[in-house]
Amino acid sequence: MTDDTAMQYALEEARLAAEDGEVPIGAIILKAGKIIGRGRNTRETSNQSIRHAEINAIEAACTTLKTWRLEDCTLYVTLEPCPMCAGAIIQSRIARVVYGADDPKHGAHVSQVNLFDVPFNHTVHVTSGVLAKDSKALLKKFFTALRKSSHGV
Amino acid sequence: MTDDTAMQYALEEARLAAEDGEVPIGAIILKAGKIIGRGRNTRETSNQSIRHAEINAIEAACTTLKTWRLEDCTLYVTLEPCPMCAGAIIQSRIARVVYGADDPKHGAHVSQVNLFDVPFNHTVHVTSGVLAKDSKALLKKFFTALRKSSHGV
Repeated sequence: MTDDTAMQYALEEARLAAEDGEVPIGAIILKAGKIIGRGRNTRETSNQSIRHAEINAIEAACTTLKTWRLEDCTLYVTLEPCPMCAGAIIQSRIARVVYGADDPKHGAHVSQVNLFDVPFNHTVHVTSGVLAKDSKALLKKFFTALRKSSHGV
Repeated sequence: MTDDTAMQYALEEARLAAEDGEVPIGAIILKAGKIIGRGRNTRETSNQSIRHAEINAIEAACTTLKTWRLEDCTLYVTLEPCPMCAGAIIQSRIARVVYGADDPKHGAHVSQVNLFDVPFNHTVHVTSGVLAKDSKALLKKFFTALRKSSHGV
């Protein structure tokens, strides 16, 4: 599966999040070309601060593999991971991360801090900018609709 | 409740983790002097990479308060938080963190990186070194026993 194809699945998760009124961010985890975990942002509907797309996808993948070690896995996510999610990726021993748009406010790769370059005992390879335009378009549409509804328009 | 008293509860969680064969790390969350969430490391028994003490305590506190916003709360944890947990603390809008021992390998406050000083849209106040000796003693005892058992002694 190409990075673009895999990111389409992550974008589909982001669209499902938007349908539930959640900020549209989605993620999937691949191992040997197969999807072993999917996740989307469910923070508002679950009332749980940790329920970002990446965390949900990691939990699903650990359940699939019956181990906390996600070695040889690639995580695709539509937005640059925040520190919590970048930390979870490192904790999970995920080999590679592919993300779409940068997140200037919370990003933990190029925006606010670069956690993937800190010399922990695990190295994560990062590719960014994959289908970034589609990710940004989804986020823009969501926040435009939110602003309109909060102004009663 | 004093910081020392609150940390005793976190240490009790750490002891329970050790009884389950988990690295002994424990956490509690206080709001207005009451414990609203407890957590201990359950990574091995759950086969989930995210199941650190702080994550489990945050999830419990969000369930108690029925919101992802843990404003006006203090999290006590026996060991310096890793990047995932420091990120989760910031995401949860927790006001204050009190921890015991430093974690030179994974710590995200003074050891590998200082996430609490990154200018996100939320500031966390940090106190460290509370009952650090007790936390270190628990960890040392655990790893000494682990080494002995893995050598068949």
